[in-house]
Amino acid sequence: MTTHTYKAEALALHEQYAGKIEVASKIEVNSEEDLSVVYTPGVSEVCKAIAADETKVNKLTSRGKMIGVVTDGTAVLGLGNIGPKAALPVMEGKSILFKSFAGLDAFPICLDTTNTEEIIAMVKALQPNFAGINLEDIAAPRCFEIEARLKEELDIPVFHDDQHGTAIVVLAALLNASKVVKKQHDDLKIVINGAGSAGIAIARLLLAAGYNNISLVSLEGVVCEGADWMNPAQQDIATQTNSAHIQGDLNDVIVQADVFIGVSGPNALSSAHIATMNENPIILALANPVPEIYPEDARAAGATVIGTGRSDYPNQINNLLAFPGIFKGILQAQKKDITMAAKVAAAHAIAEVIAPSELTVDYVIPSALNPNVVDAVADAVEAAVTEDQAVTMN
Amino acid sequence: MTTHTYKAEALALHEQYAGKIEVASKIEVNSEEDLSVVYTPGVSEVCKAIAADETKVNKLTSRGKMIGVVTDGTAVLGLGNIGPKAALPVMEGKSILFKSFAGLDAFPICLDTTNTEEIIAMVKALQPNFAGINLEDIAAPRCFEIEARLKEELDIPVFHDDQHGTAIVVLAALLNASKVVKKQHDDLKIVINGAGSAGIAIARLLLAAGYNNISLVSLEGVVCEGADWMNPAQQDIATQTNSAHIQGDLNDVIVQADVFIGVSGPNALSSAHIATMNENPIILALANPVPEIYPEDARAAGATVIGTGRSDYPNQINNLLAFPGIFKGILQAQKKDITMAAKVAAAHAIAEVIAPSELTVDYVIPSALNPNVVDAVADAVEAAVTEDQAVTMN
Repeated sequence: MTTHTYKAEALALHEQYAGKIEVASKIEVNSEEDLSVVYTPGVSEVCKAIAADETKVNKLTSRGKMIGVVTDGTAVLGLGNIGPKAALPVMEGKSILFKSFAGLDAFPICLDTTNTEEIIAMVKALQPNFAGINLEDIAAPRCFEIEARLKEELDIPVFHDDQHGTAIVVLAALLNASKVVKKQHDDLKIVINGAGSAGIAIARLLLAAGYNNISLVSLEGVVCEGADWMNPAQQDIATQTNSAHIQGDLNDVIVQADVFIGVSGPNALSSAHIATMNENPIILALANPVPEIYPEDARAAGATVIGTGRSDYPNQINNLLAFPGIFKGILQAQKKDITMAAKVAAAHAIAEVIAPSELTVDYVIPSALNPNVVDAVADAVEAAVTEDQAVTMN
Repeated sequence: MTTHTYKAEALALHEQYAGKIEVASKIEVNSEEDLSVVYTPGVSEVCKAIAADETKVNKLTSRGKMIGVVTDGTAVLGLGNIGPKAALPVMEGKSILFKSFAGLDAFPICLDTTNTEEIIAMVKALQPNFAGINLEDIAAPRCFEIEARLKEELDIPVFHDDQHGTAIVVLAALLNASKVVKKQHDDLKIVINGAGSAGIAIARLLLAAGYNNISLVSLEGVVCEGADWMNPAQQDIATQTNSAHIQGDLNDVIVQADVFIGVSGPNALSSAHIATMNENPIILALANPVPEIYPEDARAAGATVIGTGRSDYPNQINNLLAFPGIFKGILQAQKKDITMAAKVAAAHAIAEVIAPSELTVDYVIPSALNPNVVDAVADAVEAAVTEDQAVTMN
């Protein structure tokens, strides 16, 4: 159960290249004439065109494909609050994935403040530079307010990947895993271990997709209406989950569950837990790099479909399956709101990249490198948000 | 006196390419192993290395060569306050010039606020992303406070190009023009028409370079100690200029001047003005695209050396001669303060790219495309700021 963590290779590569991104010129500047066209005096006409009609900014500048990858460095990977400079390698990684997978440009914005109002004001003020904002690695519960306010106050799409990207890929895996174990019904008993931003986002998306028997468990206990330890986001999700009002902890809800989704920590799920679940349990153990239970142990305990966050096991739940296509699709549609319907559609699109005949217990989710995913997701998102508007306009 | 303004070409090119910059990946991502090194799990080790020692951020990320090109869109070219979106084409132009000429990465930060304190707070909060800040097209007098505060409060170099870039290239041109007209003495009578950010910065740099007979003229009159219409920056420069305490306007100070430097507006200087100047006058008429006086008219009126901001006349005073090398040099030196000595050294370096034997009335400043300029400037800046520190340390 040791694994290759690529520590030495990553350090060496980052030092060799001095980081992963560069701001390149699309246009060569070799002559006085080139200068006159890309800069003064010619550029003045381009400025005037945008000043006269601001909607032209996305056609005449790089803004139309430019995503801001915004963090305050407070919840980076599993490392926690390591600050904005130490977060930069992750944001640069995200930037190059946007480029490699969706052809979008993305630039890291690591903010040296953890003040919610300051973060909101700064992202608003940065809006002239970006066609969309990807929020990343911002600690809960602050991330909820930041995302909600920015979605309200900005004119461009805002997407908190740690919440919704994860949720979309989990739903995709669940859709296919249910087919494999022949439990395609809405009342699958689902336990989400972890009631932070990812867990709550997963619950919301599964509810939107039709699942109606969901419980969330945090370190404080089962999320349950009336419990006094819950934050506002947990209080809200409590009203739609755990309808049996079970209190207690994971031991109390895992019994006869069909699905375990872990967004918690290492070794949070035991073989004994799995033994109490319904037959053919689906285990998505996403803690990284050490999952809630290692696949070998889960399999030995009776699990049928097992997914993790790791690339060295089958069924990797990787956000990379979602965020490039999500942004590509919403920009294609020229809409602002990445709706719940769009997220559900994205999950179905990811799931359907695998033909039913290809599905196995070890292949319920496409590879993060599968080249068919991004456009499938983008087109599904575009269609979903375009339909949304059609409905609104009727 | 009609000129090619490249309006149609610029609009067409900007639309064809949809802007001028892209955020490119230095590293290809083609395999699971690539993903594991540039992103999770490997990137985690890079984050930890920076969290343990923040000085490593410039070695392990792209930050070490990344310049933020910051504006609020209030003083863009000659267009004035056209807003941050309409300013973006200029900032993208600046970005690609940083790349093409100095190999530096630069990213536009067009801020949707004109509040001085907000701009300062935002640039401070963006510090984790950049090795240097190029302030651009921010209206006076706000730009003075923003620059002064950021120089004080940031740990990275801050340079307001409209002030200091222009001043450096003007000084370079003046150094060589003085040689051409054989007036290499410190008490040349210099009139600067325009007492905004560029005019005051030019005055300060010429004073630092040893020139001691300078007057500034604004639309309100000659900058003069005690005048009641001056802003704080003008009050300050008044103490070091116009020692004869001349009041009035351009007519009163242009008489027997050796040098006219225009950072004002179209047609501000007449042939009659030039006729009252000392013999072999030097005219740097930088208003763009329509200069204070057209070179043909200045020549007819008796001017000897004539420079403008335009590429279609000899002696173009182009900031591009300064800013790439300034930033390259200060980053080479790993220092923060772009000192007055460094700016004077940069001007001498630009001037000395032209051998004395090559100097003519029409060739006192190198072409903006001269490939020798950037490293000459960078090395001069590096040496100057390194000497500064040596002095401090004695």
